[in-house]
Amino acid sequence: MRVTALAGGTGAAKLLRGLAACLAPRDLTIVGNTGDDTEVWGLHVSPDLDTVTYALAGLLDVARGWGRADETFHALQAMAALGAPTWFSLGDRDLATHLTRTAALRDGATLTAVTGRLAARLGVEARILPMSDEPVRTTITTTEARLTFQEYFVRDKALGDVVRVDYDGASMARPAPGVLEAIGDADRVVVCPSNPVTSIGPILAVPAIVEALRSTRAPIVGVSPIVGGAPVSGPAGRLMQARGLDVSPLGVAAAYAPWLRTLLIDARDAGLAPALERAGVRAVAADIVMTDHAGEVALARGVLEAA
Amino acid sequence: MRVTALAGGTGAAKLLRGLAACLAPRDLTIVGNTGDDTEVWGLHVSPDLDTVTYALAGLLDVARGWGRADETFHALQAMAALGAPTWFSLGDRDLATHLTRTAALRDGATLTAVTGRLAARLGVEARILPMSDEPVRTTITTTEARLTFQEYFVRDKALGDVVRVDYDGASMARPAPGVLEAIGDADRVVVCPSNPVTSIGPILAVPAIVEALRSTRAPIVGVSPIVGGAPVSGPAGRLMQARGLDVSPLGVAAAYAPWLRTLLIDARDAGLAPALERAGVRAVAADIVMTDHAGEVALARGVLEAA
Repeated sequence: MRVTALAGGTGAAKLLRGLAACLAPRDLTIVGNTGDDTEVWGLHVSPDLDTVTYALAGLLDVARGWGRADETFHALQAMAALGAPTWFSLGDRDLATHLTRTAALRDGATLTAVTGRLAARLGVEARILPMSDEPVRTTITTTEARLTFQEYFVRDKALGDVVRVDYDGASMARPAPGVLEAIGDADRVVVCPSNPVTSIGPILAVPAIVEALRSTRAPIVGVSPIVGGAPVSGPAGRLMQARGLDVSPLGVAAAYAPWLRTLLIDARDAGLAPALERAGVRAVAADIVMTDHAGEVALARGVLEAA
Repeated sequence: MRVTALAGGTGAAKLLRGLAACLAPRDLTIVGNTGDDTEVWGLHVSPDLDTVTYALAGLLDVARGWGRADETFHALQAMAALGAPTWFSLGDRDLATHLTRTAALRDGATLTAVTGRLAARLGVEARILPMSDEPVRTTITTTEARLTFQEYFVRDKALGDVVRVDYDGASMARPAPGVLEAIGDADRVVVCPSNPVTSIGPILAVPAIVEALRSTRAPIVGVSPIVGGAPVSGPAGRLMQARGLDVSPLGVAAAYAPWLRTLLIDARDAGLAPALERAGVRAVAADIVMTDHAGEVALARGVLEAA
């Protein structure tokens, strides 16, 4: 069964590990968010692609949800001594990824090519595709300033009042090679429990991708990143509000209308099932908070069976 | 007393530490070799400038003679896993220097500016100048191949038979801002006990620098890097032979003719004093193998007094 998953970073990692355990390795394609890509110390950093790659390679620092396990930060300390900004933490082992990516991009490689090469080198057999090889940058406008996603989320700790979210460059961006085919030819399309606004939102802002989602014959199944009125992790709540979305599975369904067919929701939200049905989305109650690898695999099975 | 020192890396570090201890900090200017600058993992590495900077900042790994003390190599290990060449070892803390330099150069800063900034950030008060802001690259032609200096020395461990040494770009290179003035206005010019061919040679290959050495009124004093027919460290022996220079203080004097006035030599080479005098160089026997900081300071005093 060929499965294509739309994914952010931390929120997606667990379900992707579960899907990888359920499928033949080459049958899983991940379309990753690049809207929060950023430049740090002159290096091109793709936080969500890296989180997914590390997760599937078994290298992710699971407690933090980003970066590599058993990591050190000696370069970061030395950068601080040299006066560089250090609010975006790059670990020593993690630096190798960004150095490799940056050198390859400067040599003319596409982000798709270097993402594939990095994954292969780290032993990941699933196919990881950036949503686009062209730059799309999520910007958050607060009452105070217009910020990149990383400035808003990491540097300013998501404290500002968000008035709008933009995906700069998205309207002109073409999907990366393979993305449209992966959606069109899949047996299932999965929307990971990622932030609908800043993780899945940038992917959907690439016009041709939404067209592919509307026209694919594959059932599209999502997992709600919202449980009981609050996100499982991250700043999804206030970002959904800023986009006029209810902070509930209903808001998730609205973000993914009209192409989402099925949404897995927590038992606490089962009362929303009739309203979801009225919005055209079949609700399936499941244990969507994955607390261990068995939970990841069980939810992945549930997602594949729910379609 | 204003002192300007021509310096390579490892061979120069000890004497420079001694000079820094003898002088008011702002009275020491170092003109550093950039002929063995190289690109590693997409980063601009200036090995000799960094060795000098780390030495004066008290950060040098003294046993190795390069890189930073208390260093780790986690990024290097991760680069190896990603398939990158790792024969040129960059440590995690050291990476901060190269990241900072590379980003600054890409932003349009000169090597002079970023070298000064790095030194200042690390607490070095002496002035460290690259010999030129323009690229000069030492290339070693062996019977087998034409190599960069780092390929020859680090990757191939100086094993090939050297047939010639070139300083690509040198004939068109202009001295970095401040270099000519530092030589012209000095009270003493010191040639550190560095490799005459690949450490001092590239500096002398910049035409205007040799003119400044010929015309300065400052006495020019060198310290022999050769003791008893062999270099104190590094591959100077076969490189001097390839350039037709005797592997002895006489060959050193020949490399620095006609502007070298005084050469400090080891007592074992005292018998060469008459021949050196005939070549126009006054020989001063001294303890030139510095085994501790007291030895560095004593030799620095000897250099300043010998002039």
